[in-house]
Amino acid sequence: MIKVGIIGATGYTGAELVRLIARHPKAELVILTSQSYVGEKYIDIYPHLSNFVDLECSEQDISQVIDKSDVIFTALPHGLSMDIVAEIKTKGKKVIDLGADFRLDDGSLYEEWYKVTHSQQDLLESAVYGLPELKKEQIAQSSIIGNPGCYPTSSILALAPLLQEKLIDLNSIIIDSKSGVSGAGRGLSLASHYSECNENLKAYNIGVHRHIPEIEQELSKVAGSEVRISFTPHLIPMTRGILTTTYSNLVKDLSLEEVYALYQDFYLQKPFVRVLSPGQLPQTKWVAGSNFCDIGLTVDKRTNRVIVVSAIDNLIKGAAGQAIQNMNLMFGLPEETGLDFPGMYL
Amino acid sequence: MIKVGIIGATGYTGAELVRLIARHPKAELVILTSQSYVGEKYIDIYPHLSNFVDLECSEQDISQVIDKSDVIFTALPHGLSMDIVAEIKTKGKKVIDLGADFRLDDGSLYEEWYKVTHSQQDLLESAVYGLPELKKEQIAQSSIIGNPGCYPTSSILALAPLLQEKLIDLNSIIIDSKSGVSGAGRGLSLASHYSECNENLKAYNIGVHRHIPEIEQELSKVAGSEVRISFTPHLIPMTRGILTTTYSNLVKDLSLEEVYALYQDFYLQKPFVRVLSPGQLPQTKWVAGSNFCDIGLTVDKRTNRVIVVSAIDNLIKGAAGQAIQNMNLMFGLPEETGLDFPGMYL
Amino acid sequence: MIKVGIIGATGYTGAELVRLIARHPKAELVILTSQSYVGEKYIDIYPHLSNFVDLECSEQDISQVIDKSDVIFTALPHGLSMDIVAEIKTKGKKVIDLGADFRLDDGSLYEEWYKVTHSQQDLLESAVYGLPELKKEQIAQSSIIGNPGCYPTSSILALAPLLQEKLIDLNSIIIDSKSGVSGAGRGLSLASHYSECNENLKAYNIGVHRHIPEIEQELSKVAGSEVRISFTPHLIPMTRGILTTTYSNLVKDLSLEEVYALYQDFYLQKPFVRVLSPGQLPQTKWVAGSNFCDIGLTVDKRTNRVIVVSAIDNLIKGAAGQAIQNMNLMFGLPEETGLDFPGMYL
Amino acid sequence: MIKVGIIGATGYTGAELVRLIARHPKAELVILTSQSYVGEKYIDIYPHLSNFVDLECSEQDISQVIDKSDVIFTALPHGLSMDIVAEIKTKGKKVIDLGADFRLDDGSLYEEWYKVTHSQQDLLESAVYGLPELKKEQIAQSSIIGNPGCYPTSSILALAPLLQEKLIDLNSIIIDSKSGVSGAGRGLSLASHYSECNENLKAYNIGVHRHIPEIEQELSKVAGSEVRISFTPHLIPMTRGILTTTYSNLVKDLSLEEVYALYQDFYLQKPFVRVLSPGQLPQTKWVAGSNFCDIGLTVDKRTNRVIVVSAIDNLIKGAAGQAIQNMNLMFGLPEETGLDFPGMYL
Repeated sequence: MIKVGIIGATGYTGAELVRLIARHPKAELVILTSQSYVGEKYIDIYPHLSNFVDLECSEQDISQVIDKSDVIFTALPHGLSMDIVAEIKTKGKKVIDLGADFRLDDGSLYEEWYKVTHSQQDLLESAVYGLPELKKEQIAQSSIIGNPGCYPTSSILALAPLLQEKLIDLNSIIIDSKSGVSGAGRGLSLASHYSECNENLKAYNIGVHRHIPEIEQELSKVAGSEVRISFTPHLIPMTRGILTTTYSNLVKDLSLEEVYALYQDFYLQKPFVRVLSPGQLPQTKWVAGSNFCDIGLTVDKRTNRVIVVSAIDNLIKGAAGQAIQNMNLMFGLPEETGLDFPGMYL
Repeated sequence: MIKVGIIGATGYTGAELVRLIARHPKAELVILTSQSYVGEKYIDIYPHLSNFVDLECSEQDISQVIDKSDVIFTALPHGLSMDIVAEIKTKGKKVIDLGADFRLDDGSLYEEWYKVTHSQQDLLESAVYGLPELKKEQIAQSSIIGNPGCYPTSSILALAPLLQEKLIDLNSIIIDSKSGVSGAGRGLSLASHYSECNENLKAYNIGVHRHIPEIEQELSKVAGSEVRISFTPHLIPMTRGILTTTYSNLVKDLSLEEVYALYQDFYLQKPFVRVLSPGQLPQTKWVAGSNFCDIGLTVDKRTNRVIVVSAIDNLIKGAAGQAIQNMNLMFGLPEETGLDFPGMYL
Repeated sequence: MIKVGIIGATGYTGAELVRLIARHPKAELVILTSQSYVGEKYIDIYPHLSNFVDLECSEQDISQVIDKSDVIFTALPHGLSMDIVAEIKTKGKKVIDLGADFRLDDGSLYEEWYKVTHSQQDLLESAVYGLPELKKEQIAQSSIIGNPGCYPTSSILALAPLLQEKLIDLNSIIIDSKSGVSGAGRGLSLASHYSECNENLKAYNIGVHRHIPEIEQELSKVAGSEVRISFTPHLIPMTRGILTTTYSNLVKDLSLEEVYALYQDFYLQKPFVRVLSPGQLPQTKWVAGSNFCDIGLTVDKRTNRVIVVSAIDNLIKGAAGQAIQNMNLMFGLPEETGLDFPGMYL
Repeated sequence: MIKVGIIGATGYTGAELVRLIARHPKAELVILTSQSYVGEKYIDIYPHLSNFVDLECSEQDISQVIDKSDVIFTALPHGLSMDIVAEIKTKGKKVIDLGADFRLDDGSLYEEWYKVTHSQQDLLESAVYGLPELKKEQIAQSSIIGNPGCYPTSSILALAPLLQEKLIDLNSIIIDSKSGVSGAGRGLSLASHYSECNENLKAYNIGVHRHIPEIEQELSKVAGSEVRISFTPHLIPMTRGILTTTYSNLVKDLSLEEVYALYQDFYLQKPFVRVLSPGQLPQTKWVAGSNFCDIGLTVDKRTNRVIVVSAIDNLIKGAAGQAIQNMNLMFGLPEETGLDFPGMYL
């Protein structure tokens, strides 16, 4: 059994990790740290896990976590993981960082967008951007994973095939993304206050959201050329799910069937991407509660654009599930291990 | 592997059965019937199950279903299962009826409340009311299970310990129940139209809901004396979950701790009932997506009443999950088989 | 024009007062105080009121508020209004307190339930409990109104006719109430965090909610004898609305039609109570956005209980609208002034 | 008083017309027709309007409606208004059609997108597209108004200023729109079934939605040149509101302040458009329940795009409110008459 430690276990991402690892056939929870709940039973904070988890929340004693664990998940706000990751690396254990500190290759880009100094820039080179559909082999070899953001996961999976085949104008890409409220986490704020976001809809951080450099970095790598996107996130009155609608200008004439064949081919043997049949469009209900990314395709002949829509569960494929998929690969397990369940639909 | 046939597989209860059986380690789906979707792939109706189910919907050919299956789940509106169940019984297979036709012991009571003739009244005697927490042994011996309604499951589990110990006035029981909209099924109606039930709250069928005789029958058995209840169902703007608040007059002085001890004892080794610590009250979020029933206890000294609140997922413990729990018992499996997962919380 | 000052104008109750007074034909806003937003334009906090309100938030300078206003609404947490009300009274202005400080006649009962000292107990006698359907004349004569709580408004209006006519057993009353989340106000808490209360349902404060003494006080007055109730509040995943389901044992045989006639008579010429026809049950959608209380009646012959269900908008009839109704009466206006609009339904 | 008849009064658009006209100071309801509810009291269908409307539903006898009314609102599915409108025109009364039959200037375009024959193509010339912010004078002169669709209202208001000033590339426009479920109307369908659209998010009709030709027609007129757009509608789990996010490539360098000044100027003295301050983005909560369109502006220097976001209440500014705004203009009233209220926010 893989011994798992989680640093920052009481946020929503942490809670999903706990829920999923608690039932993972090859991994077990050994230590859960928390800043706010030290000494409390985990199930007093998350009673849905009663009968499944009997750990208490530990203080954030990194050495102890490293000693006890084979792999450590860090689920902390940006800026707080970098030194912890360095320490884990030094001690020879594996780490999957669910924050933003190890997603960008370029430390100065990180500092520009996140307005914090990156104290471990030399480690960035050895970190792998943990999107298994694009980097399965590298992930398997790595001991530091920068687990992708939720919006980037849905955006990159939607666009990678088109970019790899150089079928779209690199300057034309518009990504209009919509997320459920759980993406904002468990921290209290007026923006996540029930009466404020229920029955409401808004765009936010237009053109300045911190997921932009991450999306551009990975799309540029796939394209082999610099990609610059417009990205707008929206907040949707529901708990789980991201739907991402992308618009790109085609640079050659393509039918929907050709695009479909391309996506099928690209995602062959990627167990968590389901390319929908032509004419079918994804719904977040189809993936909520699962690690799937569903992708629907449209070619708009009137405007010569390809519109690709993707749906994920932001807490699973967009966070905890993908992290476990990465863990599986790092430990030589089939990537579906512990993740082979469908969504709930209702 | 237990071969499972489902008659009426495309309603919400059917879809939950399919989802749960698809991952059950000791059972497999062999045939799914539908009235509206004959010949269509099941995953075209429920795309969340893509990669998990590859059956098509069959017409409702009962002989064929019986031939192929070891156990048959009937998920049909009331009145439509009775003859099918008789046929299954005759052919020596097991059946779990998720409708109302085999829940009441007394055929004339059925006819009074459901306004339909019961054509198989002689079979009622051999049917067992499938609430495993009360009738584990009988279920294991039976070949016809009347799977309990969702409201009755939450109501009976909330009140049984008090009644068995004769601690409450049998004429004082008020059951105020609140259900998510999925309980109304997939059939279209104005009452389930999004814009009508979103941001809305109502009571309905006060004192005349068809779950009343079922609750009274089972509570009376536990009490050893006739119980007559007031029962009010309410429709809540959420998809899954039932919360039931029950009020009863205590006939002797009892502390919260004594009531708690009683419930702990009563539900000892019942893996799907979680009795909450004194002071804790259940939330539907804690059980949604699981087969658990969480129960919270309050003693109100001012009024000498005991208020017991229970929470279940109406589609799982209130329908499909409980049906599988029954199947497990009928086939000699541990009752948790295929049901040993926590809820989703978010 | 009546000059209106609001102390605590940026909570949800305050915001509803502002919205409603902004369009009241006989009143105008002159000063809005806030603790958190001093100096900010009100419409920067509540942009839906752009074009309707041009005041800035003032600091809480009570003398200044009193000088400028003919009537002052205090919308503050309990314990914070009492001295302010005393000062307003001294200066000869009228005040409507939307908190709890002037609802209970008995200061020691207040202290017992609210765990705060009441520093102005001598004023309690001159305060009137502002439920216009029961105390229209007293309200018109008074200069201090204790505006009722939201749960009490729906509970008292549901039960008053039965109690006045002595038709029910005073010890049998159960009040099961369900409220939208806006009732918890704008203050941040995990209990009002979107992802925690969306798709969730719970009971809370069973038997110990602070609205209990207020309900018992007013019901006892109507009954002419002490009434002791069981009261359970529930939190519902919607923004606005309260539905209250009450259960009482009839002490004599009564038909639904007789109960209906009684309610029609009791609420004759009460413009904001709509007694529904026999067979019809209220829905919060029918009253949301309005000052109405809709009441539906059921007589359950099987158990000899009368079940009365009422629906209100918790922020309007349960708070700001009722406060304005009180203001109208205090200033000799028709009570509907500025409140004569239907709900939104959708 | 303007005498108002409504043909198709029991759908959601009709119900909003009824609610708003019932309180309009210069108009009164004289006849309401319905196909499904002939002879029933209107308030039995929509009980929130009890005390405000005492009409019964009449059969659809057009002559009678015309005789009784000064102006007729037709709120029917496309294809069903055209002959009715012709008859009204012949009889010299005014008509505002809330369906699609009189929105497009070109009958063959209508037939292409709507797949129905247009039997009154000669009338199209005399019909005015009823968007008062663009055509106030023409509306005032006209007797046939094609009331704009909900998506087009939000899209055209968002983009008109940029197009009039020729600031954007006409081939670059992407319109990503999100609507609450009430836009789908009161007719039953699985897509509007609560459990299907609650907690769900999807795009639909990508590139083929029938509002596309209407948007292109009006934007082309403003631009003085043909505009071709990509338009994607999305279904959001909330009842009311549309948020439209538009992306356009700037053809010259413009600062946010310059764009803001342009919009302020364009919408000067348009009482129902509120241009938000730079940095502020609209939320549907700010307009829900009102006739406002709020517009927020962003210039993305990185991609040289201007992103304009607009928010409306789909049933008011997107349907019934705008229709009344048109009626006001047709009868020489200030356009705000009966519409001068803010949204509800909560």
